[in-house]
Amino acid sequence: MNQIVYLVPLLGLVGLLVMAVKSAWVNKQETGDENMNRLASYIAKGAMAFLKAEWKVLSYFAIIAAILLAWSGTLVENSHPMIAVAFLIGAVLSALAGYIGMNIATKANVRTTQAARTSLAKALKVSFNGGTVMGLGVAGLAIIGLGSLFILFYNMFVPIGTSNMETAIEVLAGFSLGAESIALFARVGGGIYTKAADVGADLVGKVEAGIPEDDVRNPATIADNVGDNVGDVAGMGADLFGSYVATILATMVLGQEIKLPNNDISPVLLPMLIAGMGLIFSIVGTWFTRIKNETDSVQNALNMGNWSSIILTAIASYFLVDYILPNGTLTLRGFEFTKMGVFSSIIVGLVVGALMSIVTEYYTAMGKRPVNSIIQKSATGHATNIIGGLSVGMESTVIPILVLAAGIITSYSFAGLYGVAIAAAGMMATTAMQLAIDAFGPIADNAGGIAEMSQLPPEVRERTDNLDAVGNTTAATGKGFAIASAALTSLALFAAFVGVAGIDAINIYKAPVLAALFIGGMIPFIFSSLAIAAVGRAAMDMVNEVRRQFREIPGIMEYKAQPEYEKCVAISTKASLREMLAPGAIALLVPVLVGFGFKGVFPDTSSAEILGGLLAGVTVSGVLMGIFQNNAGGAWDNAKKSFEKGVEINGETFYKKSEPHKASVTGDTVGDPFKDTSGPSMNILIKLMSIVSLVIAPHISTASHGADKDCCKNKTEVCASENPHMNGKCDMTLCATMSKDECAKMCDSLGCDSTQKAHCLSMYDANGNWIGQCPADKMECQGDADGKCCKGETEKACAADPASCKNKAEGKACCKDKH
Amino acid sequence: MNQIVYLVPLLGLVGLLVMAVKSAWVNKQETGDENMNRLASYIAKGAMAFLKAEWKVLSYFAIIAAILLAWSGTLVENSHPMIAVAFLIGAVLSALAGYIGMNIATKANVRTTQAARTSLAKALKVSFNGGTVMGLGVAGLAIIGLGSLFILFYNMFVPIGTSNMETAIEVLAGFSLGAESIALFARVGGGIYTKAADVGADLVGKVEAGIPEDDVRNPATIADNVGDNVGDVAGMGADLFGSYVATILATMVLGQEIKLPNNDISPVLLPMLIAGMGLIFSIVGTWFTRIKNETDSVQNALNMGNWSSIILTAIASYFLVDYILPNGTLTLRGFEFTKMGVFSSIIVGLVVGALMSIVTEYYTAMGKRPVNSIIQKSATGHATNIIGGLSVGMESTVIPILVLAAGIITSYSFAGLYGVAIAAAGMMATTAMQLAIDAFGPIADNAGGIAEMSQLPPEVRERTDNLDAVGNTTAATGKGFAIASAALTSLALFAAFVGVAGIDAINIYKAPVLAALFIGGMIPFIFSSLAIAAVGRAAMDMVNEVRRQFREIPGIMEYKAQPEYEKCVAISTKASLREMLAPGAIALLVPVLVGFGFKGVFPDTSSAEILGGLLAGVTVSGVLMGIFQNNAGGAWDNAKKSFEKGVEINGETFYKKSEPHKASVTGDTVGDPFKDTSGPSMNILIKLMSIVSLVIAPHISTASHGADKDCCKNKTEVCASENPHMNGKCDMTLCATMSKDECAKMCDSLGCDSTQKAHCLSMYDANGNWIGQCPADKMECQGDADGKCCKGETEKACAADPASCKNKAEGKACCKDKH
Repeated sequence: MNQIVYLVPLLGLVGLLVMAVKSAWVNKQETGDENMNRLASYIAKGAMAFLKAEWKVLSYFAIIAAILLAWSGTLVENSHPMIAVAFLIGAVLSALAGYIGMNIATKANVRTTQAARTSLAKALKVSFNGGTVMGLGVAGLAIIGLGSLFILFYNMFVPIGTSNMETAIEVLAGFSLGAESIALFARVGGGIYTKAADVGADLVGKVEAGIPEDDVRNPATIADNVGDNVGDVAGMGADLFGSYVATILATMVLGQEIKLPNNDISPVLLPMLIAGMGLIFSIVGTWFTRIKNETDSVQNALNMGNWSSIILTAIASYFLVDYILPNGTLTLRGFEFTKMGVFSSIIVGLVVGALMSIVTEYYTAMGKRPVNSIIQKSATGHATNIIGGLSVGMESTVIPILVLAAGIITSYSFAGLYGVAIAAAGMMATTAMQLAIDAFGPIADNAGGIAEMSQLPPEVRERTDNLDAVGNTTAATGKGFAIASAALTSLALFAAFVGVAGIDAINIYKAPVLAALFIGGMIPFIFSSLAIAAVGRAAMDMVNEVRRQFREIPGIMEYKAQPEYEKCVAISTKASLREMLAPGAIALLVPVLVGFGFKGVFPDTSSAEILGGLLAGVTVSGVLMGIFQNNAGGAWDNAKKSFEKGVEINGETFYKKSEPHKASVTGDTVGDPFKDTSGPSMNILIKLMSIVSLVIAPHISTASHGADKDCCKNKTEVCASENPHMNGKCDMTLCATMSKDECAKMCDSLGCDSTQKAHCLSMYDANGNWIGQCPADKMECQGDADGKCCKGETEKACAADPASCKNKAEGKACCKDKH
Repeated sequence: MNQIVYLVPLLGLVGLLVMAVKSAWVNKQETGDENMNRLASYIAKGAMAFLKAEWKVLSYFAIIAAILLAWSGTLVENSHPMIAVAFLIGAVLSALAGYIGMNIATKANVRTTQAARTSLAKALKVSFNGGTVMGLGVAGLAIIGLGSLFILFYNMFVPIGTSNMETAIEVLAGFSLGAESIALFARVGGGIYTKAADVGADLVGKVEAGIPEDDVRNPATIADNVGDNVGDVAGMGADLFGSYVATILATMVLGQEIKLPNNDISPVLLPMLIAGMGLIFSIVGTWFTRIKNETDSVQNALNMGNWSSIILTAIASYFLVDYILPNGTLTLRGFEFTKMGVFSSIIVGLVVGALMSIVTEYYTAMGKRPVNSIIQKSATGHATNIIGGLSVGMESTVIPILVLAAGIITSYSFAGLYGVAIAAAGMMATTAMQLAIDAFGPIADNAGGIAEMSQLPPEVRERTDNLDAVGNTTAATGKGFAIASAALTSLALFAAFVGVAGIDAINIYKAPVLAALFIGGMIPFIFSSLAIAAVGRAAMDMVNEVRRQFREIPGIMEYKAQPEYEKCVAISTKASLREMLAPGAIALLVPVLVGFGFKGVFPDTSSAEILGGLLAGVTVSGVLMGIFQNNAGGAWDNAKKSFEKGVEINGETFYKKSEPHKASVTGDTVGDPFKDTSGPSMNILIKLMSIVSLVIAPHISTASHGADKDCCKNKTEVCASENPHMNGKCDMTLCATMSKDECAKMCDSLGCDSTQKAHCLSMYDANGNWIGQCPADKMECQGDADGKCCKGETEKACAADPASCKNKAEGKACCKDKH
């Protein structure tokens, strides 16, 4: 293996070291007066309480899932019980990533408030450094985890000279499964938590009691601020950790199918190296993210940081791709491409990501046509505001889908399926920077909340509001980026699944596949329904509790009595844990049920193909629902925010508390679960279902048993697991016609090494007769005489790559029955 | 051809005769006092004005489209300029079906009001007879049109003894295209009209001015009542006319691929005969639809009529299938089935339709869990009501999709793709009855409006309200039925498209196909966005006009001045005509652009396959969005209606004008364009795009030219158009090796008839030498020696049915390059 692989965990380590330095810096900042500290500690305690409760529930799930995985790993050739270990490490690191983010966010929030008492520049520095800690933590842990586990599994499963890479990668998929399943629960649970608290606090506090947002008298205000941390920070951290890992993994799975001479596994290493490089350039990018004066644009500072890291990564990846990939033609499933095609695909990924961000910003930004149209419709009431938002959200799917479709086709045309995957990996390379920018938003939001609750002077709130407003825009563009990368990653995982499952087409013209496509398309609908209904239910519990406290605790409104914050925190915690289970179960169980339930049911259609149809349905519908919900929610939010500065409708100017503003608040409230609960969960849903399918693929594979043995018809069968790489020259099929002695001589004359020779000779019995048999499940096809097909590949790889068969003349035994 | 085919237009004629009798009966009924007549004439005039304006716009479209079709019909072998004539007849009959419905509805409405002054039974009789006229008109015209055109085209294109059925059916597809494209514009235009008027009238009249619904002082009230007729009656009539025709046609297209001995075309005739039979049993069903007393259940009476016609049709279809289809095995694209499989598929269709109706009713009916959950959420405001409705709508997709998926798989397993199509045809058989029940709703609604505007005694309004409430339920179940049949029909059309386009798989694992799947999935989103935004815009124009009239015309509120109804009618008319163009253009143009735009762009992927991916995306996403929007809208509507009788929320009872009721009105207003504009349009969207694809399929077919000629490699080529059916025994390939005399002798000895003998001998030149050549575009593959493949089929049929090739041993020239 190329020694450069050791660079991967090393780069991750650099990220974590820089994170530690930044974290220490944030901790060193002033925390303000006692009141601020008290409020901040309520938030921190509430957040930790939620995380602990969530971890407890998830640990049961993780243990059961790990046991099942370990058991399943013993059943098929291409897996291994180690997959359970990988799964648990993925789950723990994902949770840890969320914890790091939340821990720093609950410290950075009050410090940002305090910093905002002196200057905007200082406040930006504290909040952005808080975000950076999280970004580096997530990316660093992901790279260290993936890198070291890859090295471990490579050394375990791929003894020198053989190429049983498939098992190593399949086991590594467990890591991604662990990361992504924790991410789903964290995202959904956190999303329900934060929106239940937010909606509940607003409906009673703002609407009924008429007190401002984040007022200390509102019993749900602490829960609301906790929600920002557990949903927008911890949930998002786990989410992006999962995406990041899944994207890299999908590229590795496809990369290992590109067979190169001399054990060259550079296509497998490339995505990890790009990620490592992106991490370093994200650190560089943070240097550019600063302002000097009160009037400097915060948005520009963030853009500077973001774009410098993206452009540096793009430039560097040219040299990396050129250095690491071999010259000449690379082939994946019959598609031929060059290393410059791979680089072009990376650029396609960056362009697609940038376009998606721009479109998302257009549809959700204040002052643009979509948000303005919602504002105009607010004049005729709640209903027309809602109609306007729904219409904007649906419309906003058009350009992103066209961009995505163009991205799929162009990246495919540059470098086949590997191109699609590496485009996603390129897009995700600067995740650390993306996340720093994303996490800065909720920190600033929290800082504003603390300023309001502590009744600090108005200029403090003004500064945090400035940061918060920018945070809303970055949150929207971040979501555009996230859904684009999720879509490309799902396609890459989809392609990886097809390969591992050993099918060569997913033909929607077959009735069961088409039926599965319908069912897959339906899943994002029921998932969204469950998520937003959960928010509705939890918010109603919250409303009732807040109303009860206002009623039963005298003196709250006069600041004489303190509300029972912890009861509201407990309601959100309990509700989110209860409600996250059903959507999570759908995502995890449906692929398993379909994959195993339809195994062997239809004579012409394998369950793998049916599952493929299901995944396609989930992906298409999930991407659409994700974009629709994120953008509708974002547009409603900013339509409401526009009223703060006053908006003109039919020549009249309206402000807060006007009738049109009330209509816009309705839209915002409807949009809350859209944009912060169900919308962002779509990313994880589509990826998680693909990963689950990938993990079960060896179990439902059509290629590893039965009829497909025909691939090796008339071939000498040798044991896969005991088969050292024979280099072509030490052809064991020759020995089959020789005596043991003749074989030994031939081995010597051909220059086979001792392992190879020993292997050949092990095929003779004590009497020197050729036996050459091994257990049926370990047989592999040793190859055609001309070496073009099946050589050194298991039957399954042959079945998975019918294109290589198609390229050949007809009549070769290996290929004849395959196309 | 089986003489039974002449029964088809005959049955249609029976339907029209019964319609004439019923229509005369309705016309004979009393029309009430002068005031009622005046109001009714406003409505009738407004409706006619809209229809005329719409027809004018659509006639331009129809003429241009017909010219293009006629031209395109000259370009390929399997089409013919006659397709333009078929298209125009389809368009005209579709418009006529809408007109018949609207004409009777605007007469039946005031007569129902007058009847309601005496008894509920009488009112039901008048309104239901009005509905029946429409139902019989639509079904009768469809059957006469399809039946006579089929007879015409069959005689034109399929001279006795040959089997060029494909062209006949392809040309007949023009009829369906005409019907469905008018249906789309009528549905979308009508939907925008009715909801713009409804929302506009409600927002100013009910909410701002505080006057009741249908109050004569409201300037938009006439437009609102016109809307019920142009949207819910004329739009729905054209819609169901289109669906009905498309369903039958799709089954015929697949039926002609089932090759039977002795020119047996019974699989082609079966769907038309089932439809004819369903029409007769719908007439029988109307006899059961009556009540005797004021307290009898109207719903039960309608159910009696509906179920008796369904059950009778099911029983009769057993005997029909048994009589008309041959014993033994039928084969379609390699799938073998028997006639009892076909009957089972019909039953599957009926069961799916019934289940869909039941589920739809559950999700939209008062007193059930979904509507109750929305009511409960209305207590906490507008936003939670909206969240509740969206959540219910999304949830409501689950069971219908599972039912549909099960329906696809089971009907396929019974009779292959023909089974899927015939299931849809069975489901649509009693369209006349379905439509009678559907159309009765808006008639009763209008009758109530006239009662209110004419200030008739309250018991009159009570009786019409009773009918109207039942009408709401039947409208919801009708929509469930409609979307189920649309989904199955689209699949059948999809399969038909695949056959005509000559592709044997739609592999979503190919990048361009997957990209097309995404784009297809996006189309229902942009279509819905355009439709609901159009309603929003038009409603705002209406609001401004109504506000202006209240402001500028003194005395309206005191009944002293009459509002300018015609201005509101003009606004709705203009807006709906303007706004229907963009969504209509998307549906019509996208398949054409994709089909021709990607022709030859990708080496491995034909544009037909890409278009197939697009259609799959449209169908899945369209069915989901249709169910979601219809059911969310229906549930919101009934949540609002529940407040009329009072609802209990947390122990307190709320009535109209309470805060929760206001929230529920918001939901209802949002739901209006969902359930009456964009939701029902999804049916037509998915079918229309499939039909457009089917019509262009011969032009983008991969099989008819070029490389596929290889299918006939080494074969004697004979002229397709001049080739009488050779019955197997008169094998012309034998003559190729003989002299002219030898051939003549052989023909005599084999018992070939004179046409066949003459055909064989025409292949010799004046000198008695075998020439056997004919123009390249008329060549066909005469078949392999063993007769298993290609025999009597054109190359394209061979290419379209690779399964029959796969079943054979390798090496036959006809099949070798095909699988």
